Amino acid sequence: MAKAPKNAISPTRAEDFPEWYQQVVRAADLAENSEVRGCMVIKPWGYGLWEKMQQQLDRMFKDTGHKNAYFPLLIPVSYLEKEATHVEGFATECAVVTHHRLELDSDGKMVPKGELTEPYVIRPTSETIIGAAFARWTQSYRDLPLLINQWANVMRWEMRTRMFLRTAEFLWQEGHTAHETKEEALEETHKMHEVYETFLRDHLAVPVIAGEKTEAERFPGALNTYTVEAMVQDRKAIQAGTSHFLGQNFSKAAGIEYESREGKRELAWTTSWGVSTRMIGTLLMAHSDDDGLVLPPRVAPTQVVIIPVMPKDEHREIVMPVVEDLATRLKAQTFHQAPVEVEVDARDIGGGTKTWEWIKKGAPIRIEVGPRDVEKGSVALARRDKGPKEKAFIPVDEAVGGIVDTLQEIQDNLLARAKGFLDENLVEFDDIEKFRAFFTPENADKPEIHGGFALVHWAGSTEDEEALQAELKITVRCIPKDADLRGGKGTCIYTGKEAEGRVIFAKSY
Amino acid sequence: MAKAPKNAISPTRAEDFPEWYQQVVRAADLAENSEVRGCMVIKPWGYGLWEKMQQQLDRMFKDTGHKNAYFPLLIPVSYLEKEATHVEGFATECAVVTHHRLELDSDGKMVPKGELTEPYVIRPTSETIIGAAFARWTQSYRDLPLLINQWANVMRWEMRTRMFLRTAEFLWQEGHTAHETKEEALEETHKMHEVYETFLRDHLAVPVIAGEKTEAERFPGALNTYTVEAMVQDRKAIQAGTSHFLGQNFSKAAGIEYESREGKRELAWTTSWGVSTRMIGTLLMAHSDDDGLVLPPRVAPTQVVIIPVMPKDEHREIVMPVVEDLATRLKAQTFHQAPVEVEVDARDIGGGTKTWEWIKKGAPIRIEVGPRDVEKGSVALARRDKGPKEKAFIPVDEAVGGIVDTLQEIQDNLLARAKGFLDENLVEFDDIEKFRAFFTPENADKPEIHGGFALVHWAGSTEDEEALQAELKITVRCIPKDADLRGGKGTCIYTGKEAEGRVIFAKSY
Repeated sequence: MAKAPKNAISPTRAEDFPEWYQQVVRAADLAENSEVRGCMVIKPWGYGLWEKMQQQLDRMFKDTGHKNAYFPLLIPVSYLEKEATHVEGFATECAVVTHHRLELDSDGKMVPKGELTEPYVIRPTSETIIGAAFARWTQSYRDLPLLINQWANVMRWEMRTRMFLRTAEFLWQEGHTAHETKEEALEETHKMHEVYETFLRDHLAVPVIAGEKTEAERFPGALNTYTVEAMVQDRKAIQAGTSHFLGQNFSKAAGIEYESREGKRELAWTTSWGVSTRMIGTLLMAHSDDDGLVLPPRVAPTQVVIIPVMPKDEHREIVMPVVEDLATRLKAQTFHQAPVEVEVDARDIGGGTKTWEWIKKGAPIRIEVGPRDVEKGSVALARRDKGPKEKAFIPVDEAVGGIVDTLQEIQDNLLARAKGFLDENLVEFDDIEKFRAFFTPENADKPEIHGGFALVHWAGSTEDEEALQAELKITVRCIPKDADLRGGKGTCIYTGKEAEGRVIFAKSY
Repeated sequence: MAKAPKNAISPTRAEDFPEWYQQVVRAADLAENSEVRGCMVIKPWGYGLWEKMQQQLDRMFKDTGHKNAYFPLLIPVSYLEKEATHVEGFATECAVVTHHRLELDSDGKMVPKGELTEPYVIRPTSETIIGAAFARWTQSYRDLPLLINQWANVMRWEMRTRMFLRTAEFLWQEGHTAHETKEEALEETHKMHEVYETFLRDHLAVPVIAGEKTEAERFPGALNTYTVEAMVQDRKAIQAGTSHFLGQNFSKAAGIEYESREGKRELAWTTSWGVSTRMIGTLLMAHSDDDGLVLPPRVAPTQVVIIPVMPKDEHREIVMPVVEDLATRLKAQTFHQAPVEVEVDARDIGGGTKTWEWIKKGAPIRIEVGPRDVEKGSVALARRDKGPKEKAFIPVDEAVGGIVDTLQEIQDNLLARAKGFLDENLVEFDDIEKFRAFFTPENADKPEIHGGFALVHWAGSTEDEEALQAELKITVRCIPKDADLRGGKGTCIYTGKEAEGRVIFAKSY
């Protein structure tokens, strides 16, 4: 019997998906837990990935007319209170600042002093504080639309945390806009919903189901919440980004009024939309394998790593000049409007260790150059989306000339793979018992990997959703935007009432 | 008698410098005060400026081998306490988080609940929390150096705040590094000190005096603090960036130990260095005039604004195609490795209002194109570093072909002007009475504009510095690095003792 291949990550996805996730975060050196409850340290490789995402999203925001600005970290409690649903949604999980200095007490311990007249919360989101600014900025219809984005840290005191997926502090962007009319605000909400869908597909190689949330999963204070839902490899859903139509709720709360074209005082219509470092968790679970992280080239901090192979000291002067020249030639290539990101790893550690480090970190392409390759004028090129042993031995010129195509092939391959997986695990049901079975562990390969996205007719209430959540741990992920998925009228799988169309049910993160 | 020219900013610099500062911040739409004590809202133009600074600094940090990462916002009080001088330095001005939720009390008010076992402070700086991570990351000398930078918000509960110069919350970058040897850590401290000097000179067009702080102005917990001191137009000093050699103080506090090449447990040597949004205030006070902000082209969010002049509706179809074509041609030019940043301002408001808006915002170049210009194939080009009425009427092709040179000329001109001003107001003194007179308002042009940088021999103690601060409101800004400024031995102007060389005294922000 052949020996089972040993993987870099233990346990494997099939053995224990949640633990596999934690191990990949660690093996890829993305982040680690800190001593601050629920807060992580994002390490250079993880932060490099976030920077890449930021750059590309930021360009998309600017191309759609938005400008960045920065608003205070602290929010007076009275601000939160102005929008009733909003404060309810966030009151149970916010960090509260009550004092403004520390003093030594009689035991020699530093204790909080200088109590504030009004406590502040660290922003869990910024609708209220940005609304107050918008109220100052908006006198006339000529001041509209306001199209603002903020890159910031936010804090939600979650009780159970998991790196990138749910942390007390996280990094995100929050777009906030104000408009003259309901139609314009809705158009903005949909436009940014689409930007997220495009970003996930074209940059992260993650196909999503775009759609609207039901009332139960709506943002506190929003009239409509639109979401992009990704399917990760345990077939659960993860909400990767949301765009909210806030109607006039926050305008009313903050007093965002303007003089209309007809000379009347009107309330503006607002939207907000955001994605966060949670996308790193999404990306990880969508593409990675039992050898570690797999990164789509468009967001990889290093797209090509060159590993000089120099078993003997005297190899250095043969190999390094070729490696440096190769690096220069690769960096001169352009992949999606930016120079190819190349790193030469000439650290003095074992070649095997080094190679496995880069496999675990998910670098899309590894190129090894040893003394014999130099002689032959060739290199060994390995793609992260293929097996760790699979290498192409090709002439240097071919490696250089083909690098951009190879990066694009990897990008396309990851998307196709994820799309295939989503299609395979997106199942229509009209029979409630089959639907139940789909989400019941006994019918799954493994305790943690089961189900998928179920597409069913639905006309249930929030209470019906809660009942299904209690029974099967599933929620309505969204009412799909895609007319083919939504389908026509039919009978609600749960209530038997007439339903307008199908929705997606799934377990989720 | 000729009528005095009317300026866009009132009061002027000569009339009331501090108030002029506030008015420029407002007129240029950089920022505004928020309802959160001491916190400002950074508006799109101000944030755009910060983004430009970030991009260019970030490149310089990466080129010197640093990587970005992100650490928790909250710091356990016990961490701060580990380094005695450090906690003393920050305890009196920190925001303290004591609770983790809000609940309605019997009066219907939201009040803090869920008291934390240990309170947290919002980071005033991150030496302690990053030190804890470094302690985990450092096992052997092979793990060193650690070269990390963080872009983040920090909070210091200052009692008197002024936008950009001193705010409770501010944005900054903090570099943190750990090294095997004292020499390497010192080398790093000096290298980053130089990076700041270069950045201010080449990007912000602000010449600085680089040097070391005396003990009185050292960072809490540092062995040496190196500073770059800029002179602004009221002849006061502003500390624009600092680089600290921390010795082994924070390593000891956090336990940053490693196994040395000789197999012994050793403490690492650490550094930290930072610049903040305060640089925006520095830039403003260094270059702006009585018409508003003046931006060096290298950090201007918009380098060239094109203003179509269309007094009649039918002019639009004549002017706009030419404007769009001009914008495209200008954007195709490269200024310091990036496309020229061009904005077409076709808003339907009066041309005069529009022009003054861009003057106040400090856009380096304004180009006006009206129907007659179109006829003649020319444009009107105005430079922000010249008077508001001064315009060059030049052929379109000349405007396009010369744009990069003109931007560079403006950049150079601003630097030369600021350098001239610094040189003129940097004065050597050997006579204590003349030194006193230099800093005494009666001898100055205006109550708020007086003195400058005084270069004097100094061998005084911290107490002597305090006495001079009480008497003349001046401090030692730095012991200059430049040997010509430092000079040779001499007699201390205050104590009469022998001094190693000269130091810079000045009033400061």
